[in-house]
Amino acid sequence: MTTSSDGTVEIREVGPRDGLQNEATLPVEQRVALIDALSGTGLQAIEAASFVHPLAIPPMAGSSEVMAQIDRAPGVRYRVLVPNERGAHDALAAGADEIEVVMSISETHNIKNIKMMPDESVEQIIGLAALARAASKPVEAILSTAFGCVFEGDVDPDRVAMYAKRVLDEAGVDTLSFGDTSGMATPRVVNELLDSLDAVGIAPDTVAMHFHNTRNTGLANILLCLQRGVRRFDASIGGLGGCPYSPGATGNVPTEDVVHMVNDLGYDTGIDLEALIAAGHFAEELIGRELPSQVLRAGPRTRTVAAD
Amino acid sequence: MTTSSDGTVEIREVGPRDGLQNEATLPVEQRVALIDALSGTGLQAIEAASFVHPLAIPPMAGSSEVMAQIDRAPGVRYRVLVPNERGAHDALAAGADEIEVVMSISETHNIKNIKMMPDESVEQIIGLAALARAASKPVEAILSTAFGCVFEGDVDPDRVAMYAKRVLDEAGVDTLSFGDTSGMATPRVVNELLDSLDAVGIAPDTVAMHFHNTRNTGLANILLCLQRGVRRFDASIGGLGGCPYSPGATGNVPTEDVVHMVNDLGYDTGIDLEALIAAGHFAEELIGRELPSQVLRAGPRTRTVAAD
Repeated sequence: MTTSSDGTVEIREVGPRDGLQNEATLPVEQRVALIDALSGTGLQAIEAASFVHPLAIPPMAGSSEVMAQIDRAPGVRYRVLVPNERGAHDALAAGADEIEVVMSISETHNIKNIKMMPDESVEQIIGLAALARAASKPVEAILSTAFGCVFEGDVDPDRVAMYAKRVLDEAGVDTLSFGDTSGMATPRVVNELLDSLDAVGIAPDTVAMHFHNTRNTGLANILLCLQRGVRRFDASIGGLGGCPYSPGATGNVPTEDVVHMVNDLGYDTGIDLEALIAAGHFAEELIGRELPSQVLRAGPRTRTVAAD
Repeated sequence: MTTSSDGTVEIREVGPRDGLQNEATLPVEQRVALIDALSGTGLQAIEAASFVHPLAIPPMAGSSEVMAQIDRAPGVRYRVLVPNERGAHDALAAGADEIEVVMSISETHNIKNIKMMPDESVEQIIGLAALARAASKPVEAILSTAFGCVFEGDVDPDRVAMYAKRVLDEAGVDTLSFGDTSGMATPRVVNELLDSLDAVGIAPDTVAMHFHNTRNTGLANILLCLQRGVRRFDASIGGLGGCPYSPGATGNVPTEDVVHMVNDLGYDTGIDLEALIAAGHFAEELIGRELPSQVLRAGPRTRTVAAD
């Protein structure tokens, strides 16, 4: 089994968008300050905002101002989620480096979340990808409920792979990511999805994985993915963002914890863990409560104390 | 890589001893009630008490009464930690099914914890194992700081393996467990220890692993161990018991979370997760606060909700 280093792993920060959208609304200047704190840690990809209707997701109102005010760090890609054409135009006008579009594999979840059948979502993604391509910006398709749906239960991994192949082939998206929307991924489920992706010719080193830690399997899932060759993972500073389906439960895997383990395994993430921990404490100050990252509490395993 | 089932995994509950010893003292009848709740879940091994001096660890005072009052479930082994000969006599008199003895691999930690050099601890374990053998009870040596020491930092895995071999050969202990005393185990460190154990002829399926979740790697460590053939793990109901070295940080891996992942991987633990979750909620009532188990909050991944 592979537990030693074989190269580079990209950890993509999602706190300023995916994390904050489930929190009380922060003022634009605080969102900007958080993004700027994160861009100084060595992170190379930050999900900075989404261009959704402000009445639908109030914490993301003012995303144009956020994008205008951030201090753009060299080498950092500022990624933006868009739900529709209007959002894509706004995001491109605001200077997004990459566009993210989303659909759920679960019919029930897709209808509840974006009021479309999955096949309609594929059509929409075709249009949005064309817009991004016309602006010479990469586009990523996020496939939600890829490891299970809180309404439907298990989601067939072959169905996930089928939609993954369709958005690659029909929409020509540049990258794919797979979302553990309701925290149902376990190493078994992840393994099965990677098998199904293999079967349609989608290699592990071309995809990104977005895990939640709702049932404490987040880092075990990432370990399994590393062993199978996945090299891109989403994570949220401090573990920002709860699980909307389980009150009190944890959402996204904490960036500090992911970087701590992945760095320790010998992979090159380019991220300075101590700087990241400082950013995590800053996020806690902004949010006004303790966040679930364990490394934020305990520090890295190299942190010793005096014997007396 | 192995992620599918190949047999039976034993999860050993440590909450009533290792968990409670770091909490405010509970009355004997509540400790008994917790043990009895756990013995109805399918768990086959429960660390029920320790026979230490009541002034040293007040929450473990009255362990003879605890052992006398529990309702012994068929097929459950009630395990007891002893620090010395006096404790071993008391534990055997109280009807312990198995005796646990402990030493730290880290010199600094061993001196601080039990005021002996590691070589003196080996001598002590020889004596304690002889007492257990004379009473026809199995004895387990717990090797603490096996994945790092909060005072000394990294601990050489070959040194851990050397002491493991010595207590096996010289003391004739029946089983070994390796303690992640200050939460420094990562999949890399675990892998290295398993290599060192292999090198001295100690096979993975003969040992037990005791992980903390201090840095969120607890279940990743267990996944790696399963892949390498380890089949016995300690866990604590709800994640009871903090990390004494990192205020506010998590200690033991939560039993609910471990059983959830291990069952999902297809191994047979014999444990009913819903009964375990009920025991976890009972532990929260006794302790009077929320415990860190994620599955206790979110339920198993199979728990769906109605779409409307």
